[in-house]
Amino acid sequence: MAKTPRILILNGPNLNLLGEREPAVYGRDRLSDIEKACARRAKSLGLAIDFRQSNHEGELIDWVQAARKSHAAIVINPAGYSHSSVSLMDALIAFERPVIEVHLSNIFRREPFRHHSYVSRVALGVISGLGKQGYLAALDALAGILKTEVEA
Amino acid sequence: MAKTPRILILNGPNLNLLGEREPAVYGRDRLSDIEKACARRAKSLGLAIDFRQSNHEGELIDWVQAARKSHAAIVINPAGYSHSSVSLMDALIAFERPVIEVHLSNIFRREPFRHHSYVSRVALGVISGLGKQGYLAALDALAGILKTEVEA
Amino acid sequence: MAKTPRILILNGPNLNLLGEREPAVYGRDRLSDIEKACARRAKSLGLAIDFRQSNHEGELIDWVQAARKSHAAIVINPAGYSHSSVSLMDALIAFERPVIEVHLSNIFRREPFRHHSYVSRVALGVISGLGKQGYLAALDALAGILKTEVEA
Amino acid sequence: MAKTPRILILNGPNLNLLGEREPAVYGRDRLSDIEKACARRAKSLGLAIDFRQSNHEGELIDWVQAARKSHAAIVINPAGYSHSSVSLMDALIAFERPVIEVHLSNIFRREPFRHHSYVSRVALGVISGLGKQGYLAALDALAGILKTEVEA
Amino acid sequence: MAKTPRILILNGPNLNLLGEREPAVYGRDRLSDIEKACARRAKSLGLAIDFRQSNHEGELIDWVQAARKSHAAIVINPAGYSHSSVSLMDALIAFERPVIEVHLSNIFRREPFRHHSYVSRVALGVISGLGKQGYLAALDALAGILKTEVEA
Amino acid sequence: MAKTPRILILNGPNLNLLGEREPAVYGRDRLSDIEKACARRAKSLGLAIDFRQSNHEGELIDWVQAARKSHAAIVINPAGYSHSSVSLMDALIAFERPVIEVHLSNIFRREPFRHHSYVSRVALGVISGLGKQGYLAALDALAGILKTEVEA
Amino acid sequence: MAKTPRILILNGPNLNLLGEREPAVYGRDRLSDIEKACARRAKSLGLAIDFRQSNHEGELIDWVQAARKSHAAIVINPAGYSHSSVSLMDALIAFERPVIEVHLSNIFRREPFRHHSYVSRVALGVISGLGKQGYLAALDALAGILKTEVEA
Amino acid sequence: MAKTPRILILNGPNLNLLGEREPAVYGRDRLSDIEKACARRAKSLGLAIDFRQSNHEGELIDWVQAARKSHAAIVINPAGYSHSSVSLMDALIAFERPVIEVHLSNIFRREPFRHHSYVSRVALGVISGLGKQGYLAALDALAGILKTEVEA
Amino acid sequence: MAKTPRILILNGPNLNLLGEREPAVYGRDRLSDIEKACARRAKSLGLAIDFRQSNHEGELIDWVQAARKSHAAIVINPAGYSHSSVSLMDALIAFERPVIEVHLSNIFRREPFRHHSYVSRVALGVISGLGKQGYLAALDALAGILKTEVEA
Amino acid sequence: MAKTPRILILNGPNLNLLGEREPAVYGRDRLSDIEKACARRAKSLGLAIDFRQSNHEGELIDWVQAARKSHAAIVINPAGYSHSSVSLMDALIAFERPVIEVHLSNIFRREPFRHHSYVSRVALGVISGLGKQGYLAALDALAGILKTEVEA
Amino acid sequence: MAKTPRILILNGPNLNLLGEREPAVYGRDRLSDIEKACARRAKSLGLAIDFRQSNHEGELIDWVQAARKSHAAIVINPAGYSHSSVSLMDALIAFERPVIEVHLSNIFRREPFRHHSYVSRVALGVISGLGKQGYLAALDALAGILKTEVEA
Amino acid sequence: MAKTPRILILNGPNLNLLGEREPAVYGRDRLSDIEKACARRAKSLGLAIDFRQSNHEGELIDWVQAARKSHAAIVINPAGYSHSSVSLMDALIAFERPVIEVHLSNIFRREPFRHHSYVSRVALGVISGLGKQGYLAALDALAGILKTEVEA
Repeated sequence: MAKTPRILILNGPNLNLLGEREPAVYGRDRLSDIEKACARRAKSLGLAIDFRQSNHEGELIDWVQAARKSHAAIVINPAGYSHSSVSLMDALIAFERPVIEVHLSNIFRREPFRHHSYVSRVALGVISGLGKQGYLAALDALAGILKTEVEA
Repeated sequence: MAKTPRILILNGPNLNLLGEREPAVYGRDRLSDIEKACARRAKSLGLAIDFRQSNHEGELIDWVQAARKSHAAIVINPAGYSHSSVSLMDALIAFERPVIEVHLSNIFRREPFRHHSYVSRVALGVISGLGKQGYLAALDALAGILKTEVEA
Repeated sequence: MAKTPRILILNGPNLNLLGEREPAVYGRDRLSDIEKACARRAKSLGLAIDFRQSNHEGELIDWVQAARKSHAAIVINPAGYSHSSVSLMDALIAFERPVIEVHLSNIFRREPFRHHSYVSRVALGVISGLGKQGYLAALDALAGILKTEVEA
Repeated sequence: MAKTPRILILNGPNLNLLGEREPAVYGRDRLSDIEKACARRAKSLGLAIDFRQSNHEGELIDWVQAARKSHAAIVINPAGYSHSSVSLMDALIAFERPVIEVHLSNIFRREPFRHHSYVSRVALGVISGLGKQGYLAALDALAGILKTEVEA
Repeated sequence: MAKTPRILILNGPNLNLLGEREPAVYGRDRLSDIEKACARRAKSLGLAIDFRQSNHEGELIDWVQAARKSHAAIVINPAGYSHSSVSLMDALIAFERPVIEVHLSNIFRREPFRHHSYVSRVALGVISGLGKQGYLAALDALAGILKTEVEA
Repeated sequence: MAKTPRILILNGPNLNLLGEREPAVYGRDRLSDIEKACARRAKSLGLAIDFRQSNHEGELIDWVQAARKSHAAIVINPAGYSHSSVSLMDALIAFERPVIEVHLSNIFRREPFRHHSYVSRVALGVISGLGKQGYLAALDALAGILKTEVEA
Repeated sequence: MAKTPRILILNGPNLNLLGEREPAVYGRDRLSDIEKACARRAKSLGLAIDFRQSNHEGELIDWVQAARKSHAAIVINPAGYSHSSVSLMDALIAFERPVIEVHLSNIFRREPFRHHSYVSRVALGVISGLGKQGYLAALDALAGILKTEVEA
Repeated sequence: MAKTPRILILNGPNLNLLGEREPAVYGRDRLSDIEKACARRAKSLGLAIDFRQSNHEGELIDWVQAARKSHAAIVINPAGYSHSSVSLMDALIAFERPVIEVHLSNIFRREPFRHHSYVSRVALGVISGLGKQGYLAALDALAGILKTEVEA
Repeated sequence: MAKTPRILILNGPNLNLLGEREPAVYGRDRLSDIEKACARRAKSLGLAIDFRQSNHEGELIDWVQAARKSHAAIVINPAGYSHSSVSLMDALIAFERPVIEVHLSNIFRREPFRHHSYVSRVALGVISGLGKQGYLAALDALAGILKTEVEA
Repeated sequence: MAKTPRILILNGPNLNLLGEREPAVYGRDRLSDIEKACARRAKSLGLAIDFRQSNHEGELIDWVQAARKSHAAIVINPAGYSHSSVSLMDALIAFERPVIEVHLSNIFRREPFRHHSYVSRVALGVISGLGKQGYLAALDALAGILKTEVEA
Repeated sequence: MAKTPRILILNGPNLNLLGEREPAVYGRDRLSDIEKACARRAKSLGLAIDFRQSNHEGELIDWVQAARKSHAAIVINPAGYSHSSVSLMDALIAFERPVIEVHLSNIFRREPFRHHSYVSRVALGVISGLGKQGYLAALDALAGILKTEVEA
Repeated sequence: MAKTPRILILNGPNLNLLGEREPAVYGRDRLSDIEKACARRAKSLGLAIDFRQSNHEGELIDWVQAARKSHAAIVINPAGYSHSSVSLMDALIAFERPVIEVHLSNIFRREPFRHHSYVSRVALGVISGLGKQGYLAALDALAGILKTEVEA
């Protein structure tokens, strides 16, 4: 693994609309604001990030698969695919390194079909409802885990 | 909004096979026949249409998102994605303008898993079982709604 | 069948209160407004209508049965009986001619027990959420169907 | 109780259409044919019958209640109300004398919602799928039961 | 509203048999006993009552609708229709004034299908298992509520 | 088929204990009493019977299979195997001639797991709760059906 | 039993916050207001009360057990323990004297998990949604019941 | 149909990782190993194959649709889309020629959500748990079926 | 283990009727035809077979138990016992060598209760819907597995 | 009843393999070890035992029925039939004397379908997870019960 | 571990009322009778006991936790907390030594919500329905297990 | 609010055993380690903490209620009470200030009954599976939220 571990930060469908779409639910931050905050935090933690968004289930799977060769961990906000995509879950299993799932809103306060996430079955941890802060907490946690791995 | 409101008419997976596939269920009209009938009706109602089909969930989501800047309303026949796509539903919520869902066959006379549509939870209205006529009725309804909005 | 096909338009329980009751859900049109709009549309389509309302399940069944001898098709808004009446569904099966179900509000955006309609299992088509326009779309569709039958 | 015990034979919604409606499911006998066969069989068993049909749940309940003063037993084909009417079931409980439920078709070979009958929870016996013969078997059984009661 | 507020007290199917039917479950009071007790209590509270019973779902709905013009509140024992009638519930929603639901027996100690009441979803309050006393408690509560409304 | 049609009457597990076991549920008749009554009734109807009992699912299946060559119809009281045996149901489907299911007690008044019978899905008719009389009614019905077949 | 029957009035978790907590749901009365109203009503009915609140399931059970020696009846608002405590229900069964369950809000208009109460399975009666008035109605009912017992 | 029938062999999401991903579950064969084995077997059976993999639901649907013009049968391992894709199932229905579903692992020994496959509802046959051998068995079966069709 | 590994091929209830029973579902092959085809294929694979059928659950279990001493693998078509027999499943677990489950028809296209097989939970692989070919594919697969075991 | 009460100890399917089959689940004792331990314990308690095993549901039922004439109580380990056999349960009901159910492993720590036992619904007591010791505890309990009966 | 192993015997809510409460369900023994019997049996087995009861879930958890330092095994009758307490189950998991669950009555013959016990998921064994004898059998079993551990 | 906002950190049942109990699931940190880490982080964020643990549901509720007067926010790890305590959830609703729920392990990778938390329905956010880091992330998030509130 490279000196500076790279973290892949994946954002699922409709997250490109962040800040425009239902601010009462998802907050006023734009996705680029979250990316900037992540980059800053990553830098301070000695990590590098790649930050991407796609509305396509298959593209998200492609990215997860490619990350097997290039990234030390994944932070993923699977959005709508959380609840329907066995295939994305299977890709994350095959990644075989730490995965943290993030949701901007608290999915347990929303409609019942949003309470189950296939990704949660395989993620190391799940952070729901803390908005942008959830991404940063995921990076904090990964920094600790990766450091431990290196030291071990 | 432009003088002539544009309506985006979206058709989901396998609708490109219309007329060839299971005519006992879906009827003998081809998708191009429906497009022509919609164009005629739209014209008579003072509307313009864009008529598209895709087998890709992500592409349908991309189109719905893009329509936020260009279209006054959406008519959508989500076909198989009706029953599985939380992500398409989320895109339609983010569209924030009128959406009417259309199914050629009456989905309530078919297998139980076709009785639930995520899109129905967010559409203004749902028309099921009227074949090509369902698209035209959706345009009629949207013409009335858009006119009311303009007048209001 | 008579030269001018007669359509029976049936309205179930509490629809006589239309315009007074929960306008946020059901709109401001009164049932008589809907009747007038239906009569106008029917005339332009070469159809005649009989427009009735009852709070009594048995009376609705009686009317459906009688229509076997006098009407070419039925448009029905079964209201609360949609969700509970196997008997009304059985009467509509015995009618053996086209039936279209109409709901003023989109029943799929309401309480879960309103998502299942026995009538939908036997209707040719279902229109939900388009308000008064739903009745007119049902007449349009029936005009096409009856014309096809005559020509066939 | 009178010398010749009277049996009330009740027929629920849509049974007045018998012979006309879905003969593949319900057979070709008209309700008047069944009435005649019942009258003949009753006579040979030393019983008298009253044979009625209604599409109205409330009327069926009224009749069951009135029978408390005038009839020794009830044979009932509750048709569509089998599956939805707690109220008819409650009336039959209050009748406090023998009740036999009859269905012309075998309801267990039909749609799942027809497999449960509230009336079956309180009837002495249930006969399903034997057509007209089911009514006659119910009369046979009641003749035996009433005779036993008299002798006891 | 009239000086003396009128309360409509509605009794559903089979309650006319009270005192005769299953006294172990429903007690020995006749419906006329309950009516008398209600009249006495109403008088002492400065209220007038109309006390009715019907076995017909449609008639109960008709009465609820008519009460919109004439009564300040409804006390209803929906009996068997509690568990099956969406339509009666819808009429009570349209009444738009206080409704209290009463059951003579404690429905939660009986068969599971009696544990759910559509009316409970829309009533202000529910009293179950207190026999005749339940009606009187409902009148007490309504007297307080109506007085508050007048004073407010 | 032979001049005198033979009917196979099959009795499932524990029915050999009839009259001894739970008389409150199953009555006081012994299985031999039922056999005698069946033989008498069959004779008067121009039918012959074979009357058997087994506690073994496999033996009941063997008998049903063998009857394909020797019997015109089956009357079966599957007792406990009603609720668990897909295999017995499959054998009855393969019999391809009329089958009538009989239960001494009304299974719908008993525990919920007794409400579903695999045999009911394939039987021509079902008689439940009429005791010994149920067997006789089944023979009556079969006599009518076989006569019709011969005449047709 | 003592001349003046003592009633134990038990209030479950969070009811000590009454008046402060979610007044839109629970009303503006404080628990001490309800206690005072109960004391007044009890006095006028010839009853004495003990009025208590606890957030501890075990303490509520201890109190119910102790009441077996000291109290003639219990009025209980089990609040959150209604839905989860088999143990509190078992204590109330062991009390073997009249129990009436009271809820300030109508629990059937709230989240589905609040629709089931273990206590309702064993209480004599249940009063839901009448606010403070529900406690008073419970005392009225108990006064009648205890008087009847004494007289019997 | 061409002299040498072409079989389309489709592999769903994450199967490109075969041999690398969870060998305990999916075995050590790489997808290219399976392709080679299929090509050899096809040749010996007088068949030609096209062997493809995609992580994109829409692309798999596109391929199935295109095969309507070019292929005599499909062997499909839908992987994660087995459990979520109504749309892929609909495409396979529209293919209207033989389809055999293959799973490398026995899906019935895994998590419950893997036990249901939409594809199984429409496939001619399903082979689960035989690893690479499952593909070969599917080709064997198709060879027999296509030969029969030609001969018929 | 003997030089030529013996495979036990077990057939469950009603399979002895193959070719006679519902040919539309199960095909026209008789069980003896399948046996012959299996013997031929086994011979070419260097295997020996024992081919048996029973309608008795207990006999099938006895045979599975005995095979622990004499057979290298089992091919089983459990027919109706697939869906009900925990005991047969337990015997197959105790066999501790490879088991392949075969169904002639595709059980996933049939009634819902046929979609679950206890045997599938413990079999190495499952083949459904390929008719006679399914047995042969099972032998092919076992030949490969047994060869691998020997070589390992 | 004889001086020395006889206890029938029945063992269901696959228990003859005990000690050989899955020792991690069922322990290393053979069935003959359990029989010997039971015989010793019975002797010390003044009881005689008959100890049997069968893989056949029907044979177990035959033995239970025969025990009505010869045995004072039954200890049964129904193994796989626990979960599927209504018929065995019915035979045990007809036995009308004490029955104790024993499972070697704790069935509540295993697959969900093993958590429900029909036999538990009718047994006096159930002992699960204590291995051989469970049989001995059952004998201890029966000795106490039979002694009490004799003394009563 | 001390020479004489100490067993903690815990009794959950309402068991302090034993002998007074519902003797038809729980028997006539008082808890002190059970304690005495346990002490006698323990002594004969070379064990010491601590016997406690609490109505408080938290106190039971505290005692289980403390036993980690002082006791070799636990016998627990969790009563009402069996069905609701994940927390008590978690404490028992953390105990990490043998736990046997005892119920006086056979919980499988009672209401459905008593059929599931969280404690059963983690106990070594479960004894239900044997009254006081169940506690003694648990001690017998533990004596054997602890002896084996010492010897191992 | 005080200058330095106080955060109440609550730990539910069995968390006092942390580090000793199931380290594979919960990690090796002791609760005091977590407390120290929280104190350090709080200090750096300008916050004060109170850190407590209880096995008693009622005590946790008491603490939440008291915090209404003294604390600006709550971090809670409800452990086993997550899944069963409506009452604790109700107390947190009444707290009316920010609540963040933390679980050391990822509850979505454990038994199904741990997937639902009543607390999640009312918490602002949920962090699951990040071990000690989850508490720190909760403090980070609260620091941001409280700062925003102050500034707003």
